[in-house]
Amino acid sequence: MKKEVTLGIDIGGTNTAFGFVDINGKCIVDYSIPTLANNNAADLFARLNPEIDKLYRTISDSCILKGIGIGAPNANYYRGTVENPPNLRWGTVNVVELIRQYYDVPAAITNDANASAIGEMLFGAAKGMKHFIVITLGTGLGSGVVADGKLVYGSDGFAGEIGHTVYDPNGRLCGCGRKGCLETYASATGIRRTVMELLANSNQDSALRNVSFNDLDSKMIYSAALAGDKIAIEAFQFTGKVLGLKLADAVAVTSPEAIILFGGLALAGNLIIEPTKRSMEENLFHVFRNKVKILQSGLPEGNSAVLGASALIWNEIIKIK
Amino acid sequence: MKKEVTLGIDIGGTNTAFGFVDINGKCIVDYSIPTLANNNAADLFARLNPEIDKLYRTISDSCILKGIGIGAPNANYYRGTVENPPNLRWGTVNVVELIRQYYDVPAAITNDANASAIGEMLFGAAKGMKHFIVITLGTGLGSGVVADGKLVYGSDGFAGEIGHTVYDPNGRLCGCGRKGCLETYASATGIRRTVMELLANSNQDSALRNVSFNDLDSKMIYSAALAGDKIAIEAFQFTGKVLGLKLADAVAVTSPEAIILFGGLALAGNLIIEPTKRSMEENLFHVFRNKVKILQSGLPEGNSAVLGASALIWNEIIKIK
Repeated sequence: MKKEVTLGIDIGGTNTAFGFVDINGKCIVDYSIPTLANNNAADLFARLNPEIDKLYRTISDSCILKGIGIGAPNANYYRGTVENPPNLRWGTVNVVELIRQYYDVPAAITNDANASAIGEMLFGAAKGMKHFIVITLGTGLGSGVVADGKLVYGSDGFAGEIGHTVYDPNGRLCGCGRKGCLETYASATGIRRTVMELLANSNQDSALRNVSFNDLDSKMIYSAALAGDKIAIEAFQFTGKVLGLKLADAVAVTSPEAIILFGGLALAGNLIIEPTKRSMEENLFHVFRNKVKILQSGLPEGNSAVLGASALIWNEIIKIK
Repeated sequence: MKKEVTLGIDIGGTNTAFGFVDINGKCIVDYSIPTLANNNAADLFARLNPEIDKLYRTISDSCILKGIGIGAPNANYYRGTVENPPNLRWGTVNVVELIRQYYDVPAAITNDANASAIGEMLFGAAKGMKHFIVITLGTGLGSGVVADGKLVYGSDGFAGEIGHTVYDPNGRLCGCGRKGCLETYASATGIRRTVMELLANSNQDSALRNVSFNDLDSKMIYSAALAGDKIAIEAFQFTGKVLGLKLADAVAVTSPEAIILFGGLALAGNLIIEPTKRSMEENLFHVFRNKVKILQSGLPEGNSAVLGASALIWNEIIKIK
């Protein structure tokens, strides 16, 4: 009997990665092509199709495709659409209909943070959990909220925008046009802004004084912190303080068993987890204290986004079985 | 054939109300007795039992009891317990086991805000909705969050504490020991504090200058606002501003179709709804704007708590049917 696999597709602003994944979360083969963000969605899928076919032929003797899961920016699970993504010139397009023109299997789409949440539930740090939140710390801050074993999509499919809860109404300008959103503090770009602010406000010596705003990335801040750079360490402390405060609010809404940190900044491990946990505990309503774990992603670093996308459709298939 | 009814019991700090309710949310008969907060839970149920029996006998020719739902402070749905309620000298007690000693029907318990949420879903303003939040504006601020047609209890049964999300970390002292919790602003006691602050900070003439802190209640503030009292009107505006800001955060987590205001302060109608709505819209992430309704409770004022408690168990019975 052939092994059942699903295809996970992660559409990013630069590259689109895809791979075939079994029910245990093992990615059997994967590949990626440039997204070419200035072209439309139909162009991407016309270029993807032969590449997916080629990859599938390498495993089709032993595997059979059961479904397709897609992670994409501004994706709407209910409608199967991607709606005016900030980094792609797509407008609004029904991606599930598009992919179904090529493959006659069940398909579903959601944003990358929601896909990560389902990935963690099926294959990662949230295995066996029914109530948890995944926070993706990338360029922005995404979140996927799971209650009672189900992803919370909300009334319009856009639930889980914890990155756009407000930390400081008079704070940093956000890409969304408002001020002080959590993601302007707790994200790869947020911690960069924090470093610049700390450099401006102190006379503390720091290796980061030699790096321009545009050149600075979270890996550099992480390396500096590991080397004992006080500005870098303080930047992580401040990021955790802000993140923990807003996570305490989110805990009061859905009472998760754990919050899982995912993405670039989360790779800093205890440098970010420890101050986040401390600040969250300080700000939690007493009934939730010492109950909520903060964990690092349990998905392998390399193809976690493909695994998340695959998990989205595995989760649907499991429900039917 | 006899009409199926459930018994709803609402345990408050002063009185315990109960009534028999049909599947359409019609309360057929109801009654109440003093809770006697200094006695233990067993005493309350020993006194309740004959009163419930007496009331049931008045309808038992035509009705049959199918289940019992209970709303109580600090109630845990998963465990069937009430756990160290602030206003009752009960400690932690399994109330579902207690009531099942008297009646061999399914029983469930939750806190009053969650019971109200299920009441609104079955009988009130949230009929037919799958994603909504109920905010109870009483002495404190309670909340019940419904996602995908199910109440979110969270990992430990205590989800929905939006009253204890933080508006201002340096703000008003809360009964929970922290500072600036939403309920210290948006509640019957919160608006009283706001009035006192406004009286202190302005020279504006106001009828409320003749009322002591302890004598002031939200009905007086409402009446004053209706009579054009500027301090009272400003107090409602400020309450709505704070509430709307924190509701915008909650919307970003679960994306509800509507937020339903319930309880004493909500009876002020547009005096509280209008500024809340305006502030929420101002603070919403753009994908949620102009989508989330703010509605007044659709449950009848007199026995809404009994209806909510009854709805809790009706909701379980409907699931099995």
